[in-house]
Amino acid sequence: MKKGQLTREMILSRAAALFNTEGYSKASLSDIMAATGLEKGGIYNHFGSKEQLMLEAFDYAVRQGGARIKQQVDAQPTAESKLCAVIDAFATLSQESPVPGGCPVMNTAIESDDSMPELKERAKAAMQRLLKFIEQIIKDGIAEGEFKEDIDAAESATLLIASLEGGLMLSKLFSSASKTRPLQTFWKNEIRSWTRRRKQ
Amino acid sequence: MKKGQLTREMILSRAAALFNTEGYSKASLSDIMAATGLEKGGIYNHFGSKEQLMLEAFDYAVRQGGARIKQQVDAQPTAESKLCAVIDAFATLSQESPVPGGCPVMNTAIESDDSMPELKERAKAAMQRLLKFIEQIIKDGIAEGEFKEDIDAAESATLLIASLEGGLMLSKLFSSASKTRPLQTFWKNEIRSWTRRRKQ
Repeated sequence: MKKGQLTREMILSRAAALFNTEGYSKASLSDIMAATGLEKGGIYNHFGSKEQLMLEAFDYAVRQGGARIKQQVDAQPTAESKLCAVIDAFATLSQESPVPGGCPVMNTAIESDDSMPELKERAKAAMQRLLKFIEQIIKDGIAEGEFKEDIDAAESATLLIASLEGGLMLSKLFSSASKTRPLQTFWKNEIRSWTRRRKQ
Repeated sequence: MKKGQLTREMILSRAAALFNTEGYSKASLSDIMAATGLEKGGIYNHFGSKEQLMLEAFDYAVRQGGARIKQQVDAQPTAESKLCAVIDAFATLSQESPVPGGCPVMNTAIESDDSMPELKERAKAAMQRLLKFIEQIIKDGIAEGEFKEDIDAAESATLLIASLEGGLMLSKLFSSASKTRPLQTFWKNEIRSWTRRRKQ
């Protein structure tokens, strides 16, 4: 890896943490300079504008979060255990996340949905990928005979992700992981009910 | 109502709409001036600071949203139909809300949770009231023999609200109410399963 590339990744990592905790609008150029150790000129040399840095930092945060979830899912053998790995990955996000501040897709969705169209489009695309990722796990489970055929994969993916994102918001707001524990249990039971042979 | 009070409510209404769509940080003092038609001095005369206006506008937005939900719930006779009214109220929030921009509690929770302690405390208190409100409907349903006794009212309230808030976030992100339709059906069926005599 070239020195220039490493620096760019480091800037993105620090900017992503700043934006994901403070918000894109609240983080000023001087906050970004303080977080990255760069001068104003250095930031513009790398990214051209604060807006461009925001977009790239969002992509960076999504890559990090996505890689973490994918790694945990890939380690599991069945569709049920893969979905449980997603539930567990979300459960840890309120305390500890690859990029501090919780789920960058939800944070960006909420901040951008009425006022920042370019960021909103990226958040929308990232959320669509997450939903498709979950939907595919469910479809594979059905195709391989693990899940019942009447499970609607797209609807179930939407339901699960809505619940996990909302639960994460509550956990962060109440600074308490215990807020989401019943939610994890509920969904793990629900997913178990999708399997053709119910485990005891 | 005195003229001064009317003006204060009007400022809060416009400021709440601005903050709930743009976000507290993105809305500048000149945005607030443009939205309210007030000069800088007029805003400071009424509220002392932007921070104070933010807090009062948040309270205003919560009062409006809370009154809307309460009105729809109070019109229903049973615990089941009251909870369905909550689900329907959330479903309309992505398209049309008393204060534009969706749920002010979730929006404020996400924006404030890592960086604005005073707003976060208000969002936390408002969310706690919402959860208690739902919990009480469920408890009343149990006490009156409508719901089964083994339903955990607090946990069920958390689950329902997490799901509705997450669903609202998805609906707004995808600019599509159809995203939450399966979620509404799912929860209405789930709530029906809590009743002692299951309706067909």
